[in-house]
Amino acid sequence: MLRVIVIGMGPIGVNCAKQILADTDLQLVGLVDLDPAKVGKTADELDGLGHGAGPKVTANIPDAPADVAIVATTSKFDRVVPTLRELMSRKIHVVSSCEEMAWPRYLHPELAAEIDAEAKRAGVALLGTGVNPGFVMDFLPIVLSSMVTKVSNVKVIRRVDASKRRLPLQAKVGATMSVQQFNHLKSHGKIGHMGIAESVAMLAAGLGREVKRGEVRVMLEALVADGEIPSLLGTIHRGQVRGMRNTAHWTGDGLTIDLDLIMALGENDAQDSVELTGPTPLKLLIPGGTPGDTATVASLVNFVRVLPNCSPGLKTMLDVPVAGARRVS
Amino acid sequence: MLRVIVIGMGPIGVNCAKQILADTDLQLVGLVDLDPAKVGKTADELDGLGHGAGPKVTANIPDAPADVAIVATTSKFDRVVPTLRELMSRKIHVVSSCEEMAWPRYLHPELAAEIDAEAKRAGVALLGTGVNPGFVMDFLPIVLSSMVTKVSNVKVIRRVDASKRRLPLQAKVGATMSVQQFNHLKSHGKIGHMGIAESVAMLAAGLGREVKRGEVRVMLEALVADGEIPSLLGTIHRGQVRGMRNTAHWTGDGLTIDLDLIMALGENDAQDSVELTGPTPLKLLIPGGTPGDTATVASLVNFVRVLPNCSPGLKTMLDVPVAGARRVS
Repeated sequence: MLRVIVIGMGPIGVNCAKQILADTDLQLVGLVDLDPAKVGKTADELDGLGHGAGPKVTANIPDAPADVAIVATTSKFDRVVPTLRELMSRKIHVVSSCEEMAWPRYLHPELAAEIDAEAKRAGVALLGTGVNPGFVMDFLPIVLSSMVTKVSNVKVIRRVDASKRRLPLQAKVGATMSVQQFNHLKSHGKIGHMGIAESVAMLAAGLGREVKRGEVRVMLEALVADGEIPSLLGTIHRGQVRGMRNTAHWTGDGLTIDLDLIMALGENDAQDSVELTGPTPLKLLIPGGTPGDTATVASLVNFVRVLPNCSPGLKTMLDVPVAGARRVS
Repeated sequence: MLRVIVIGMGPIGVNCAKQILADTDLQLVGLVDLDPAKVGKTADELDGLGHGAGPKVTANIPDAPADVAIVATTSKFDRVVPTLRELMSRKIHVVSSCEEMAWPRYLHPELAAEIDAEAKRAGVALLGTGVNPGFVMDFLPIVLSSMVTKVSNVKVIRRVDASKRRLPLQAKVGATMSVQQFNHLKSHGKIGHMGIAESVAMLAAGLGREVKRGEVRVMLEALVADGEIPSLLGTIHRGQVRGMRNTAHWTGDGLTIDLDLIMALGENDAQDSVELTGPTPLKLLIPGGTPGDTATVASLVNFVRVLPNCSPGLKTMLDVPVAGARRVS
């Protein structure tokens, strides 16, 4: 019975906690969030339900013994590091949704090397993962590439129909904004998908290439409605933003990578597709697309069972065995 | 520069050897086959080409130092064991296309435990892998399941159009046979896909269940032509065998697995599909299907680069990191 702490009580943390409560081979031993409005509440209460079972949120990591922590607090690797260090001092393995941590050496090579050494000394494994980065645009294409010997081009398209997603996601992709508002946020780095450059760097590494900081060309554009589209934020009118498109490109060493992420309302043909070009071309489709909301939670919880059996260090998806859906109950 | 020996000079071994000769980071240091007609020949010569580069086939494993051996000699785990033991005594890692070795504990739990202990003492990693078993019907569904927390049903369909494959495969699936001939071979266990029960056992293990020997229900049937179909063995007439269908079924512990493999001439809609049922259903398609001939070779060669970094033991696809197509040149 693995003892698990969840740190960061946003939607991902809350749903991880609820999932762990439902699993008979995992024991939820702590919930952590700095927000005073959340302290003292259970996961169910944070989800707007009744009192519910399990521990209550504390502002600090509880003293109770634990095996693994799920950390869902920030997208930035340098910001998650103090939490990693506290958990390492307690010999607790970590799986995190921190997007930069999916391939931390892209933006933070020195810090990543330091944390790797510290994790090895502490004897714990640390992993950043999720749906994207962590699966659709990086790990899955590498898995597919194991069936060919050589790849010259990788093209991954992920098209998410934000009409079917919760309100925070519709807001996040810019729904109902003017193009001017979108571009203002964009110029301040306050809109756009996190981790797409990390996906490129991981994918390249899985195919035997090294991508250095700043080499990935990331582009972001607003997608504009050409008619009325209903949204949870109100009607999107013609000319207003219905979502965003984020692309990333890298080429080097005989390999070209193109990632194309569309998250928008009014996208009918939602799907993930991976296309490998080379002596033997190969294509893979996930019709409807990997469901972002539930799949991030699933990948974090599934790795709780895998990490205690991994060698210590700051790991990536290229270092660890597969984490299948092992929930039996 | 990893030094590689290839053992077993059938089509898979020959193509692995040619692939390794083409890779600038791998060095082919030996070819082994017992067949006197093959001894003394290069990989190119065995492929019906000119003299070619690289070592010549020897009947015994050469004394030259080596890091990894590719073993493509037999489908049966107990028959590959003497080769594994010889390679372990030489501290050489092994990746094998032996179908039973993809999940050796299904048919040979005691022998698998012995070999695992011996490999750990020898400090080498041994892995059985390939397309099927090793990928389409076991590893790939487990990879997909990492995006959900719980799975109640797995259905994998692999439909191979044997019209597009080489003559030995068309013969292997029974093309041009009478149903009586097919059933005669079937009753002697001399026709049918190898490793489908191992795929079920691996898939179940990846989803947290244990399948015991004999629990998988495997079925084999001839598929009959309802009109004339050309083949490399001559025309298949109405009523003659055009291929085979192999299914495998297991249910237990809240999980049902159904694998459905069709390899036949006149199959137009070739594809691999994986369907996971559960609280969050998920589906994956490989249009055209994973190309069996080249992909087995690719998976063996890709794991040559991964095995030296694995911990020692008799490994399975559930224990090892992903082996992307790392060939750069």
